[in-house]
Amino acid sequence: MSESNEDRARRVHRELKGKTEVALKRPLETRSDLADVYTPGVGVVSADIGNDLSKVWDYTGRGNMVAVVSDGTAILGLGDLGPEAALPVMEGKCALFKRFAGINAVPIVLNADSVDSIVATVKAIAPSFGAINLEDISAPRCFEVEERLKAELPIPVMHDDQHGTAIVALAGLINAAQVVGKDLTSMHVVVSGVGAAGVAIMRLLAQKGIRRIYAVDSKGVVSNEREDLNPEKQRLLTDGVIRGELSGTLRDALKQADVCIGVSKAGALTPDLVSLMSDKPIIFALANPVPEIMPDLALKAGAAVVATGRSDFPNQINNVLAYPGVFRGALDARLPQITDTMKIAAAEALASLVEKPTATEIMPDVFDPRVVPTVAEAVKSV
Amino acid sequence: MSESNEDRARRVHRELKGKTEVALKRPLETRSDLADVYTPGVGVVSADIGNDLSKVWDYTGRGNMVAVVSDGTAILGLGDLGPEAALPVMEGKCALFKRFAGINAVPIVLNADSVDSIVATVKAIAPSFGAINLEDISAPRCFEVEERLKAELPIPVMHDDQHGTAIVALAGLINAAQVVGKDLTSMHVVVSGVGAAGVAIMRLLAQKGIRRIYAVDSKGVVSNEREDLNPEKQRLLTDGVIRGELSGTLRDALKQADVCIGVSKAGALTPDLVSLMSDKPIIFALANPVPEIMPDLALKAGAAVVATGRSDFPNQINNVLAYPGVFRGALDARLPQITDTMKIAAAEALASLVEKPTATEIMPDVFDPRVVPTVAEAVKSV
Repeated sequence: MSESNEDRARRVHRELKGKTEVALKRPLETRSDLADVYTPGVGVVSADIGNDLSKVWDYTGRGNMVAVVSDGTAILGLGDLGPEAALPVMEGKCALFKRFAGINAVPIVLNADSVDSIVATVKAIAPSFGAINLEDISAPRCFEVEERLKAELPIPVMHDDQHGTAIVALAGLINAAQVVGKDLTSMHVVVSGVGAAGVAIMRLLAQKGIRRIYAVDSKGVVSNEREDLNPEKQRLLTDGVIRGELSGTLRDALKQADVCIGVSKAGALTPDLVSLMSDKPIIFALANPVPEIMPDLALKAGAAVVATGRSDFPNQINNVLAYPGVFRGALDARLPQITDTMKIAAAEALASLVEKPTATEIMPDVFDPRVVPTVAEAVKSV
Repeated sequence: MSESNEDRARRVHRELKGKTEVALKRPLETRSDLADVYTPGVGVVSADIGNDLSKVWDYTGRGNMVAVVSDGTAILGLGDLGPEAALPVMEGKCALFKRFAGINAVPIVLNADSVDSIVATVKAIAPSFGAINLEDISAPRCFEVEERLKAELPIPVMHDDQHGTAIVALAGLINAAQVVGKDLTSMHVVVSGVGAAGVAIMRLLAQKGIRRIYAVDSKGVVSNEREDLNPEKQRLLTDGVIRGELSGTLRDALKQADVCIGVSKAGALTPDLVSLMSDKPIIFALANPVPEIMPDLALKAGAAVVATGRSDFPNQINNVLAYPGVFRGALDARLPQITDTMKIAAAEALASLVEKPTATEIMPDVFDPRVVPTVAEAVKSV
């Protein structure tokens, strides 16, 4: 009997017991080695840092150290399973940070039941780290957590479910627009799903100059007429990120739309909805692991370009294309913040790595060695 | 011109930029590797842990992961220099955890200005770790921090400045008593310095059955008559850890004393004070890097056994003999607490590694490969 994928994952995790480990940067075999890295050698270094805090970047590993922080309230598509259940995901993310960007990342899962508690904890541990990657924190608390930490910490803080996704989605859209021969900023874009990823995608697309964005949540189009909108959705309207004149359902929003980006629930997109869209529609069905519509169905219904989050179809739109390079650049340049301008630069750099985008190749490969340095350079050059 | 020791430490720290790094436990070179350690493989593992929290120990690295936590208020003998200045020390400690016990330890330095804040932060991050090593936190806050965390967390919490020091001091004293042919529990012991280390040493010696312990702080002997004692010192008296009938100065306490353990300030012990002690006095001058009295002076004044915290004299009483094995044992057995009984067992095991203690050999060598497994086994076997 062959092993199921699920059992294989369980076995691999049981065997590994953690995906990363700590390694010594140099051997500790003699008393002199001990004196160098511990007492008494460390004393003068601590005193130096005490006199001039900026020396912490020269004398310690802080500048290449990232905390991957989650409260476990939105683990993948599984929901709120608590911090322990988030640990394997954060460990995986830390492994990817190392593999792709050479960054030393540490999983920090939090027993924290409020925005205040998450913010206070991350602020308290921040002196150990060069940057903070927030992960799998549920909406809407993720917005406030990130906003407050960005305002209150001197190091970069990025909620990857929001901004990593937004960067790769924008990169994909830049190339998809080229494939279908449409002007990026004039396209009619519908985003289905107004959680962490959806909000960040819409904000970044708007920053890039796309002016006709419509948001659709589980109750329909987010419009000026709706009276049930949470503050985050209201702000999308008042900030002019999305259009609010249209009411109705996803069906209404998709009529003559050029792009549909799904970051919601599996099955939300059907072939007849795709057929309502404009000529050569672009479909990003990013729900994971089951996309809103399977690529073959979307293509049959007339889609010109289809992308998903999965590695087993063409056009994988995966955060791992963005965050390693973004953090690499931010750490290398010791940036205090990761700004929207940097995210757009990262998306453009990523898109530029595909020399001749086609319907089945709008994204670079995750193992393309140019990805991280190119994204890092873009972030630093802003 | 040759490089000074201080400049060498600076150079080594600048070159290393951190003493440890993150390493992958297995290569990430294919999409299948990614699927195993990240999405989608990780999903079922997270779901399993969500259903049964105890599976976190099987599926993640938590069981071999220790946080080395400091608020930077008592860095070595340097005082309160803040969290950034504590980082090189904690990094060194993490390197030693790996080198001696194979434990993955992460430096967590805290921007935290109160006991409540330290306790709340450590509780919040605890789900990431199998145990917590507190370090370089000033007295008296270190006592309350540790007490509360021990009561409120299901994993071991140990303030190493207290208990690591206490374990190695007790181990040394067991062997020193043998060298001078005295009964351990009947000895008259003076502890000079009633901070974190002093308090823990006295409590452990009392637990081991030593009944004549006198404490001396900067104002003199801690006695029943004193009205300026902080709660921790009062508790030493009311708990019967120390004797309170004697008043006066260090000089008064040392008359006919068998042992003087210094955990205070350089130069606190003079030859004429040593000459007041009983026959064959034992001197542990543990102030670092400059001992309370230099070994040659103490020996000339009549000391039979002299130990320091330094590696360049015989009889180094160094925490690194204790904490790696203690945490190794606690993690391996998944102990919820590190108890006094375990600490005494650790000290006895450590002492037993010196087959024939002599005046110049009461402690095993820090590089003796038997140390960690022996201490770990002792902790587990309690």
